[in-house]
Amino acid sequence: MIRYHFGYQAPGKAMSGKRLRPQLLLRTALAEGGTVECALDAAVAIEILHNYSLVHDDIEDGDELRHGRTTIWAQFGIPHGINAGDALCAISYLTLLHEEAVVPSNRVVEMLQVLHEANLRMCEGQGLDIGFETLPTVSMDQYLEMIAGKTGALFAASCELGALAAGAEPARAAEYAKLGRAYGRAFQIRDDVLGTWGSSSLTGKPSGADIARRKWSFPVVWALGRPPSRDREIVARAYEPCARVDAAGVGEVIGALERLGARAAADEMHDRALAEAGEIAGRAALDRENAVRNFLARGARRVA
Amino acid sequence: MIRYHFGYQAPGKAMSGKRLRPQLLLRTALAEGGTVECALDAAVAIEILHNYSLVHDDIEDGDELRHGRTTIWAQFGIPHGINAGDALCAISYLTLLHEEAVVPSNRVVEMLQVLHEANLRMCEGQGLDIGFETLPTVSMDQYLEMIAGKTGALFAASCELGALAAGAEPARAAEYAKLGRAYGRAFQIRDDVLGTWGSSSLTGKPSGADIARRKWSFPVVWALGRPPSRDREIVARAYEPCARVDAAGVGEVIGALERLGARAAADEMHDRALAEAGEIAGRAALDRENAVRNFLARGARRVA
Repeated sequence: MIRYHFGYQAPGKAMSGKRLRPQLLLRTALAEGGTVECALDAAVAIEILHNYSLVHDDIEDGDELRHGRTTIWAQFGIPHGINAGDALCAISYLTLLHEEAVVPSNRVVEMLQVLHEANLRMCEGQGLDIGFETLPTVSMDQYLEMIAGKTGALFAASCELGALAAGAEPARAAEYAKLGRAYGRAFQIRDDVLGTWGSSSLTGKPSGADIARRKWSFPVVWALGRPPSRDREIVARAYEPCARVDAAGVGEVIGALERLGARAAADEMHDRALAEAGEIAGRAALDRENAVRNFLARGARRVA
Repeated sequence: MIRYHFGYQAPGKAMSGKRLRPQLLLRTALAEGGTVECALDAAVAIEILHNYSLVHDDIEDGDELRHGRTTIWAQFGIPHGINAGDALCAISYLTLLHEEAVVPSNRVVEMLQVLHEANLRMCEGQGLDIGFETLPTVSMDQYLEMIAGKTGALFAASCELGALAAGAEPARAAEYAKLGRAYGRAFQIRDDVLGTWGSSSLTGKPSGADIARRKWSFPVVWALGRPPSRDREIVARAYEPCARVDAAGVGEVIGALERLGARAAADEMHDRALAEAGEIAGRAALDRENAVRNFLARGARRVA
């Protein structure tokens, strides 16, 4: 089932994916003077941990499709789906333990601490997100706290692990965690924009799916924080508890969000988070050559 | 939700439970000359990991009751149930990492390796068990492989972790793992007997629940390995794929199992596994005082 999830059943048909987290991890390791070899097991571990969260999220959200393919629970049933996700989680940690061949034991313990804590933060964020489904409204602060856990924790861990694998002191690695957290915020807000305005060929999910399912995304949370207006009312009505929104209704909400300026606000927030990441990267690399700083800055743009 | 699961919502109403795994872990640590202090975090970690597996198992098996209380998913929904289990898993590992205060780093890495591998073995066993539901029949070898993962892995890890926490060399700790595995087999077979003949006041589940749900327990697997007879036929018919068995049918199957000698066979297998555990305990303690050997042997009897 795990092979199925990764698309390894037919040769040459591996699941597509951006592999952002391992990329960030390896970039950070290189920026800190490490090698790909010293960080590779950690990079694989973070990608596997991310996939464990996807497998469980798909059950929790009732998603039957990912990247255009049937999700693991939809293919094999919920019991196997939960269990395969659990196995992926264990495999992620076992993979990180391979770092012991290239990194001292006390460093491996620090890395495991980072990964386990990131997993717990991720669960906290996911718990908030599930709880949002029954809330009458969600504030911007609540939304930002939720994505800091659900998305930010693993991005933060990616950068922190890369720095630790390269031999950075924990305090310095913690600076990179901040960078990852800012990246994660940028990424999630961009993901929310795609979930609202993205075409299904790009996302592999039905267009406007987040609205039909009453998901609290950045554009919606931002729009409901605006003063009363006809357009705000359209959004508010679609997000009343137990609201049922058909395809036409989804289109109306998307139009209202656009007119309210939610898309522009999301783009601005995204750019601000990215600028913050770039700033931290610049600070972190202060005592290194410009080349390293530029490398990380390029990484930031590519993630966007 | 985690507080709810453990029964900590009302003061003085903690969930009952035998705490077998932490008991085994602490007993092994003491037998190896360790202290309770050196092994306590590991003991808590193994109990939490066990509870993560219970939370997910209850979803996978559709169980709405445990120890007479509504299970976490039945109380809060499947999404929160999966997520709370995931959080428990992360908390278990973070708890084990506290061992770093009393145990050297390389030893902590060994202990984490043991716990993560046990988790993976447990998932493999659980995957087999879920798969059994759609099999027309299950052999004794398949059954023993399944319980070695589902139950044996965590019992083995309990003993191994106790020995490692006390400072035993990995090879010696691996001997204790064998002891735990034998205990685990004894425990699971006894659990299967309770799931068939135990009263619901003892198990907190409906009597004969395993049969009504077509669970492949030791008595059933053993009975179906007997030569053809009227009683064997009664059991076989109840375990045909898609069979529906009512309360009267469950009673008939229990009677047939008893007449075939399945209960006596289970008791014999249980005693044999326990004798094996005692033997390993004896071997492991060969270079220690008799007191230690007797202490472990008493532990073995109490687990039963």
